[in-house]
Amino acid sequence: DPKLKIFSLNSNKPLAQKIADAVGVELGKSEVRKFSDGEIQINIEQSIRGSHVYLIQSTSNPVNDHLMELLIMIDALKRASAQTINIVMPYYGYARQDRKARSREPITSKLVADMLETAGATRLLTLDLHAAQIQGFFDIPVDHLMAAPLLANYFSEHGYEGDDVVVVSPDHGGVTRARKLAEHLKSPIAIIDKRRPKANVAEVMNIIGEVKGKKCVIIDDMIDTAGTITLAAEALKEKGATEVVACCTHPVLSGPAIDRINNSAIEKLIITDSILLPEEKKSDKIETVSVGELMGDAIKRIHENKPVSPLFEKKRK
Amino acid sequence: DPKLKIFSLNSNKPLAQKIADAVGVELGKSEVRKFSDGEIQINIEQSIRGSHVYLIQSTSNPVNDHLMELLIMIDALKRASAQTINIVMPYYGYARQDRKARSREPITSKLVADMLETAGATRLLTLDLHAAQIQGFFDIPVDHLMAAPLLANYFSEHGYEGDDVVVVSPDHGGVTRARKLAEHLKSPIAIIDKRRPKANVAEVMNIIGEVKGKKCVIIDDMIDTAGTITLAAEALKEKGATEVVACCTHPVLSGPAIDRINNSAIEKLIITDSILLPEEKKSDKIETVSVGELMGDAIKRIHENKPVSPLFEKKRK
Ligand SMILES: Nc1ncnc2c1ncn2[C@@H]1O[C@H](COP(=O)(O)O)[C@@H](O)[C@H]1O
Ligand SMILES: Nc1ncnc2c1ncn2[C@@H]1O[C@H](COP(=O)(O)O)[C@@H](O)[C@H]1O
Repeated sequence: DPKLKIFSLNSNKPLAQKIADAVGVELGKSEVRKFSDGEIQINIEQSIRGSHVYLIQSTSNPVNDHLMELLIMIDALKRASAQTINIVMPYYGYARQDRKARSREPITSKLVADMLETAGATRLLTLDLHAAQIQGFFDIPVDHLMAAPLLANYFSEHGYEGDDVVVVSPDHGGVTRARKLAEHLKSPIAIIDKRRPKANVAEVMNIIGEVKGKKCVIIDDMIDTAGTITLAAEALKEKGATEVVACCTHPVLSGPAIDRINNSAIEKLIITDSILLPEEKKSDKIETVSVGELMGDAIKRIHENKPVSPLFEKKRK
Repeated sequence: DPKLKIFSLNSNKPLAQKIADAVGVELGKSEVRKFSDGEIQINIEQSIRGSHVYLIQSTSNPVNDHLMELLIMIDALKRASAQTINIVMPYYGYARQDRKARSREPITSKLVADMLETAGATRLLTLDLHAAQIQGFFDIPVDHLMAAPLLANYFSEHGYEGDDVVVVSPDHGGVTRARKLAEHLKSPIAIIDKRRPKANVAEVMNIIGEVKGKKCVIIDDMIDTAGTITLAAEALKEKGATEVVACCTHPVLSGPAIDRINNSAIEKLIITDSILLPEEKKSDKIETVSVGELMGDAIKRIHENKPVSPLFEKKRK
């Protein structure tokens, strides 16, 4: 359909190319640069009048620049008479600021939702939101994909399945996610229960579930500074795990993350390309599974008014 | 009034302190930092329930960070039950993207206005907007101050007034501004009329008005890369000006600006502190006039429901 157009902003052009390839269209011609004073300049070099535009951007670090690129591009597309403006956001930044945990905190994920809608977004396609509730922050349709089937694919192809594997959630919040992966692998689950016995005393890592003599697969939605996951890996080894591998959808990997992973008990870390991994963060321990085809298929289904949910079951190739 | 609270974000704390001093209150306790992954974290360390909050931020370079700081802080104040949220924006970034000059351009100044309102701003106090029309992009009250009287003060105190001075506008767009300053100084005006005779031929600087044997004061709203103003100064000297000085409200001064000014025919440049001048941009040629008192007086008048316009006439101390 010539009315289906895909544009990419600057955060993750390799993934955008994979998505466009999966859909079978070329990326639209546009460029985003900065003026001398740091303000964003946008050039859309082809007509998009009456088109259904899919705009790909992860709001990863530098998050404020990536978010403003996105908002300004939406504004330009709206004023250039795009028929629909569908935001494809593999990684949704500011997702951890999703509630007032303390007094006078902002809820920045809701602010981002409001900004996108005010700018003119008509739909959001995203992946493994830190909290599924963020869908409710939007008044436009949201399609929410999961990377778990792709990660499951990787693990079963590499012999991690069945009863000698345990899928481990590094905290209470991630149990549902661990459950999902465990179902695919037909493996049991375990949960790490961090407790601080008293203030100013180091946390104790209790493990709920059996890990002795087993291969552990830790799963989280994102790995940021990698503190939690590397401590979890150590605790699992202490409790008799034979091997610890880890996976996540969003490789934020900020600050000490790469050093911590390289020096940890984690033997392998499987990530997706929802966030571009820069050269300096590459490591022998890290392997990437692409979400390009998953997101491309979702775009095709959305464009054809088909439900996106069957993609959740897609597993073995 | 204990309900009047002033908070500053990170772009220009020295000016914020001057404004608070002029109003006679202490700056509110808050801190804006970044998490390890670059996301903004806000801490408001005192109750603001029921207060009238004045929030000071220039959206200068890095503009996207400064804008997001502002939006997130507005969100936090709104959720913490501030009664009114008054944005004090000495410099309004993205003001040059105020119309579609070419096809498929965004109108980012309008986007910024929409973002501020969506986040929860209830009023805007700003200074020398690049285009006064930007006031119309808002549905909330906007108070628009001018630095011209302060600049006029400086020049008349330093002997630049009357008939041996000409106030020069560096382009057609700035004639009204030059007129304003010239009125204060009781001096005539001149206009620089840049023309490009053919494509790919250097521009010719025609000067409309008499400058021979006179001291020229060039005025612009902002100086960014300083290309226009340094060429204008040269043209004025060639046409027989005895001295060229310049002034602007907003010292954007990006890229080659400082080198250009230091190597130009401009003997002195008077700026305001609407944008903080970092150490590395200081120059013997540059002098600063503060807008702290002007903005502080405006806050007091707004808080007392008095008109702000009398400040436009404020001249000699
Ligand atoms: N970018 C960030 N980096 C680290 N912590 C964050 C970030 N954004 C929000 N938080 C904090 O993380 C907590 C939420 O994380 P979670 O409990 O995993 O949902 C909140 O207390 C936030 O203040
Ligand atoms: N930050 C910026 N730096 C340089 N040029 C800009 C910037 N923002 C907008 N512009 C361009 O400046 C022009 C408007 O400037 P003006 O004619 O002075 O109002 C438009 O063509 C914009 O594309």
